[in-house]
Amino acid sequence: MRAPLLSVIVEMPGMHADGARPLAIAIHGGAGVIDRTQMAPEREASYLAGLSAALDAGYSILERGGSSLDAVADAVRLLEDDPQFNAGRGAVLTHDGEAELDASIMDGAGPRAGAVAGIRHVKNPIGLARLIMDKSPHVMLIGQGAEKFAREQGLEFVPNTYFRTPYREEELQRAIHRERHSDKGAPAPGTITGTVGAVALDRAGNLAAATSTGGMTNKRYGRVGDSPIIGAGTYANNESCAVSATGSGEFFIRSVVAYDIHALVQYKQLSVQDAAKEVVQVKLKRAGGDGGIIAIDRAGDIVLEFNCEGMFRGARDSRGRRDVAIY
Amino acid sequence: MRAPLLSVIVEMPGMHADGARPLAIAIHGGAGVIDRTQMAPEREASYLAGLSAALDAGYSILERGGSSLDAVADAVRLLEDDPQFNAGRGAVLTHDGEAELDASIMDGAGPRAGAVAGIRHVKNPIGLARLIMDKSPHVMLIGQGAEKFAREQGLEFVPNTYFRTPYREEELQRAIHRERHSDKGAPAPGTITGTVGAVALDRAGNLAAATSTGGMTNKRYGRVGDSPIIGAGTYANNESCAVSATGSGEFFIRSVVAYDIHALVQYKQLSVQDAAKEVVQVKLKRAGGDGGIIAIDRAGDIVLEFNCEGMFRGARDSRGRRDVAIY
Repeated sequence: MRAPLLSVIVEMPGMHADGARPLAIAIHGGAGVIDRTQMAPEREASYLAGLSAALDAGYSILERGGSSLDAVADAVRLLEDDPQFNAGRGAVLTHDGEAELDASIMDGAGPRAGAVAGIRHVKNPIGLARLIMDKSPHVMLIGQGAEKFAREQGLEFVPNTYFRTPYREEELQRAIHRERHSDKGAPAPGTITGTVGAVALDRAGNLAAATSTGGMTNKRYGRVGDSPIIGAGTYANNESCAVSATGSGEFFIRSVVAYDIHALVQYKQLSVQDAAKEVVQVKLKRAGGDGGIIAIDRAGDIVLEFNCEGMFRGARDSRGRRDVAIY
Repeated sequence: MRAPLLSVIVEMPGMHADGARPLAIAIHGGAGVIDRTQMAPEREASYLAGLSAALDAGYSILERGGSSLDAVADAVRLLEDDPQFNAGRGAVLTHDGEAELDASIMDGAGPRAGAVAGIRHVKNPIGLARLIMDKSPHVMLIGQGAEKFAREQGLEFVPNTYFRTPYREEELQRAIHRERHSDKGAPAPGTITGTVGAVALDRAGNLAAATSTGGMTNKRYGRVGDSPIIGAGTYANNESCAVSATGSGEFFIRSVVAYDIHALVQYKQLSVQDAAKEVVQVKLKRAGGDGGIIAIDRAGDIVLEFNCEGMFRGARDSRGRRDVAIY
């Protein structure tokens, strides 16, 4: 006769009263100067519907016992497919009128990571970043080489025109016009239009983060922002938190924003909320960087921090929280 | 009549007895499996001569009152021009037999940074990284776009054949042969051959770091390692230290190695020596990453830390230290 099974409930951070482990997901659809007075109610409703769809899709994966990695990849894929957001279809256009896409993903267990930059024909850059992490010994692949890998892996390809929308074409023309009529070399105002991203905590206690972008309108020279840079735009580590950033990429790269939040949590024992405040409201602001981050810690606490007018965002967790917002 | 000038000597970290501020530079030419028994004495002497030339060129800039930025850029340029090292001329070759180069530079004042990846025709990638930092609002440019910027800035172009040496051609053939006769997908052993880099402290108290590489032999798919990633392969901040890394790039990206050393110094008040030991000997080793880093702190203390058989390296400072070494 076997001894009776001994049932031990180990106290986990954020665990619910019934012993269930917390679930949480947060998403963003970019941050920056969002002029409230210019936003028609139906456009606002449409943005919120897009955010809700991605948020709920990601959360339902967590609820079914899926991984945080699957949840963030799926939420970001939906935001890439939604032409309202600056990633995948609907991405902003380069000076030459093309879409040029970057993305990265990180698994807090491991940690493992995958990233792509300068992609023009892979329908979902986040799916390519995921495959680089899962199926190659590498972390980062760029340009045509990355697309060759994508083709070998059987990912879906689209012509570059798939990504382009009339709204982004107009936006590009306005940016080029502004540039011609402003100081030479000075970047046109309002050209930084963010990214999309997601962070999540699953039932197994694993954290994950994902970020995807078209970069900045009217960009040139193969410019790459923080979105595909592990440590800047994306970072996840089961020991601390998962972070996805959006904003003026150059500042986020120089400040190594996502890893800096992790480092403040791990080395200074700050809460993720305090670490995010320090990095976004103090350090980034001092450096002149606009934008924000979303983060989730091991207990499932969600942080949505930005130092500009608005950030398209959503948050949902197993404590019953569910909200989407812009300002 | 004017009041006599009041002379105040403010105590600075590492200041010499005569009040002169410390100067220091360190360089590396890659790290990894360096088989002592296979190294002919004349080849060893040639490596050391190459390291000495770069070290002394950088140091003489500091001695003449030049900036740490000029010192690291010039030291790295010389290592790029030296066909013995895996950067610029003499870079390792991709699976297709081409050279594909990455580089980055960071100015601890600011901080400011510049980076390039996937370069094929710019003679000195470190010079391009510097120009991106100095003359563009961006941090990172990749591929043909980056080369377009280089052309507009009047940088020297070379055919891709300029970078290729018979030694690297043979190395590539050996790697391809090994790959065909080993487990599919497993990277051929010894294919990671490092980078070059430099860190320096100048009389004004400014720290700078620079890194340049050809990546790994037989690389595919536009693979990018840690060298052009700010925070991974390169980081400098006047508040803490300047770091340049070399080794198995994927591990260095996931561990955000250069910024992690800065974070341990700034948030845990570790010395740069202790921070480097923690990151290179404990964290990287646990993750399975081989390689090393060079670093200099605000007092001019030089750290050369590696967890593999050897690292081509050199160090020189105003206290009279001057050494170059391999093992």
